[in-house]
Amino acid sequence: MKETRGIQFKNQHRPVIGIVGGGQLARMQAMAAARLGCIIHTIEKTDDCPAASVVQKHQVGDWNDPQVLLPWAESCDLITLENEFVEASTLLKLEEAGHQILPTASTMAVVQDKWHQKERLKEQGLEVPNFKKVDEVQDLVEFGQEHGWPVVLKKRKQGYDGKGNTTVHCAEASAEAWEHLGGAQNPLFVEAFCPFIKELAIMVIRTPSGLQATYPVVETEQKDHICHTVCAPAQVETPVKDRAQALGIRAVEAVHGIGCFGVEMFLTAKGDLLINELAPRVHNSGHYTIEACPCSQFENHIRAILDWPLGSTDLVRPTATMVNLLGKSEGPAMPSGMLECLQDPETHLHIYGKTHSKKGRKMGHLTLLGEDPEDIKVRAIGLAQSVQFGL
Amino acid sequence: MKETRGIQFKNQHRPVIGIVGGGQLARMQAMAAARLGCIIHTIEKTDDCPAASVVQKHQVGDWNDPQVLLPWAESCDLITLENEFVEASTLLKLEEAGHQILPTASTMAVVQDKWHQKERLKEQGLEVPNFKKVDEVQDLVEFGQEHGWPVVLKKRKQGYDGKGNTTVHCAEASAEAWEHLGGAQNPLFVEAFCPFIKELAIMVIRTPSGLQATYPVVETEQKDHICHTVCAPAQVETPVKDRAQALGIRAVEAVHGIGCFGVEMFLTAKGDLLINELAPRVHNSGHYTIEACPCSQFENHIRAILDWPLGSTDLVRPTATMVNLLGKSEGPAMPSGMLECLQDPETHLHIYGKTHSKKGRKMGHLTLLGEDPEDIKVRAIGLAQSVQFGL
Repeated sequence: MKETRGIQFKNQHRPVIGIVGGGQLARMQAMAAARLGCIIHTIEKTDDCPAASVVQKHQVGDWNDPQVLLPWAESCDLITLENEFVEASTLLKLEEAGHQILPTASTMAVVQDKWHQKERLKEQGLEVPNFKKVDEVQDLVEFGQEHGWPVVLKKRKQGYDGKGNTTVHCAEASAEAWEHLGGAQNPLFVEAFCPFIKELAIMVIRTPSGLQATYPVVETEQKDHICHTVCAPAQVETPVKDRAQALGIRAVEAVHGIGCFGVEMFLTAKGDLLINELAPRVHNSGHYTIEACPCSQFENHIRAILDWPLGSTDLVRPTATMVNLLGKSEGPAMPSGMLECLQDPETHLHIYGKTHSKKGRKMGHLTLLGEDPEDIKVRAIGLAQSVQFGL
Repeated sequence: MKETRGIQFKNQHRPVIGIVGGGQLARMQAMAAARLGCIIHTIEKTDDCPAASVVQKHQVGDWNDPQVLLPWAESCDLITLENEFVEASTLLKLEEAGHQILPTASTMAVVQDKWHQKERLKEQGLEVPNFKKVDEVQDLVEFGQEHGWPVVLKKRKQGYDGKGNTTVHCAEASAEAWEHLGGAQNPLFVEAFCPFIKELAIMVIRTPSGLQATYPVVETEQKDHICHTVCAPAQVETPVKDRAQALGIRAVEAVHGIGCFGVEMFLTAKGDLLINELAPRVHNSGHYTIEACPCSQFENHIRAILDWPLGSTDLVRPTATMVNLLGKSEGPAMPSGMLECLQDPETHLHIYGKTHSKKGRKMGHLTLLGEDPEDIKVRAIGLAQSVQFGL
C-alpha cells in the first residue's frame, strides 16, 4: 500500500492492528477496523472478554507485563489501546523495541497520571478546576481550607467510572478519605468541586499527518459516577459549543494526542468551561457516533492511527441519545426485555457479549436518532429501562 | 430469555448462531449478530475466508458433507446460510436431527433449483419470463423456435454472477451451449430473453411469527453478469415500486421464506414486472442498507430468524448508491487507491478481508448516501474506480 503514509506493514497487504485490552471499546474498534480490511489482534487477561469473539487472534495475558506484551506486539504492524491503564513505561519498552504505538508512550505518560495531565493542561493555559498534589492528609486539609469544601480527592492513576474518587466535605473527613483511597500506597491529588450546570464532552481525532476532526459537542449525564446518557448535540448556545470545540482541540494538542480522544468538561452557571479530564481513546460519550455520524469514532480512530483520511463527523439526523445498559446484578449476559426494547424499530441496540452481568457493569448501550432532542431522550431512556441484565 | 418466541438456546443466555459458509455475506451477518450479543460459529472449506476472522468459532470443513455438518451443528442454537448451494437434502438431515435451520430445508429445496423455483412462482400466479426444463438439446431448440431467439440457457443449480448461464442466439448454437454448460451432467433449463429496460430488486424479510418488512425497491446494474451498482430507491414511478414490493412479498411467501430474501426483477418497456430470481439470503443488492437504513439487511436477517421484532427499513437519506469493488487481477487483498477513495469523507468503504484478489472477485464494496441520485451515483462510481485490487 504505497499510499500509506507512516506505517509499513509486515504483512505486506493487510495491516495487523494490535489492540491492548479486550473490553467493549476494543470490540467496537475491532469491528470498525475489520470493515476496513484490517486484521486485529487483541490481548486481555481473560479469554471470554468482549473483543475476543470478533477478532482474528486473541491472546490471554497480562498487558502490563512487558515480557508478555513484547512477544505479542511482534505480530502487529501498529498498536493502539482501549484504556489508559497500561503503564507508560511498558509502552515505552515497546517503542524502544521498534513498535509503533498510537497514542504514544509519551502521550500516555502525561494522560494516565491525572495530576500530571492537569498540570500539562494548566501549563498550556487551559481552564481546569483548581487542583493540588496530595502527598499527605495535611495537603488535602489545606486545599479545602483555601478553596472551600467540598473537594474531590482522586487517585492520580487507574480511576474510572467514579472508582478512585471520593468527595470530602470537611477537614474532619480528610483522614478517612485519604485512608479510603489508600493514600499511603496510591499517589493522590485533590480538586475543587466544580458546581457545574452541565457536563459536556467532545471527541477529537488527530492524525500523524496533521489532519484533525471533531464530533459534535455532547451533553453527558452520570448516575452514581457512571455515564448514563449522552445527548448529541449538546443543548447549549453556539458560542459555548465553539469554545468547547476549541478547548477540546487544544487539550488534545497539549498532550500531542494521535487518534481519538474524549475531552470531558464542566459548564458553569457563569458560562465558564473547565476541563474535567481527557480520555486518550475512544470514549463512552462517542458511542452514539456509530449510527449518528457517517464515520464513527471507532472507524475514525483506526483511520487516524493508520494516517488515513478521516471520515465525516457530521450528524445524519438532528439529534441522538445514547443510554448505557448496566448490569442490575449478577446474572446472565443476555438481558431480559430485549424484545420489548426492539419493538421500537428505530432502536439501535448493542450488547457487548460479556459472559456475566454484575451490578453497575456496562453490558451494552442503545442509541436513538431523531428530530426532537427531548422526545428522543425520553424515548431512549424508556427503552433502556425495559432491558434488564442480571434479573 | 423468556421473550424469545421460537428458539430455545442451549447456551441459556447467549444465542449461538451457526452460519453455513464463510464469505462476505457470512462476515457481514456475523458482525450484525455480534452487535446483538449473539455468538457466531461458521463453517467453510478454507480457514482464511472473510468470516473466519470476525467470529467466535470457525470450522474448516465441507458443508455439503452431512458427516461434517451434523457435528458442527451440535454447538448451534439456530442455523442459517450465506448461499443457496448447500444441498437441501443435507439441510433436511440437520432438521431431522432436531436442528432449526432458517430458511428451512423445504424452502431451500424449492429455491436452489431455479427451474423448480420458477415453477413454484408460476403456480402462484407470479409473472416470470417463459421457461422450460431442458433434458436434451432438442428441448432448447424447440423453446427458441417457439419463443424467439436469443434465449438464456441456465444450470438449474449452483449458478451465480453469470456463472452457469449462457445466451443462445440461434438453433445452430444450441448444441455447443448445451455442451458448454455440461448438459449431460447438469440439469438445465431455458428462459426467454427478457428485453428489460431496468433491473429492479427488493429485499424482503419475514419472521416465523408472521412479521414482515421490505427495503426500498432498488435499481441494479450488472457488468459482465456481476452486480456492479445498486441505486436506492429505484428511479421509477410509485405504482411500479408498489407492484415490485407486492411481487417481492408474494414471491417470498410462495417459497415460505423466513429471514431475508432478495428478489430480482425485470422491468420491461411496457411496464411489466417479471421475476428474474430469488436469493434465499442476504443479497448484494441490499449491502447499501448497512448505512442507508436504520437497521441493515444483515441485522434484520438475524432478528428475523431469531423471531425478534424487525428494525426500520426506511432510508435515512434520500438516496444511496452501492458499488462493488472487484479484483482486477491476481494480487494482494488490500487495494491500492484506498486513500484516494477515502479522501471523500462520506465514503463508506467495506473491504472483505479476502486473502487474495482474483479477476472479477468481489473484494469489497462502497456506499455513498446523499440527496441527488444522479450526483451520488456518479461520485460513487468515480470513487470505486480509484480502488484497484490486484494491481
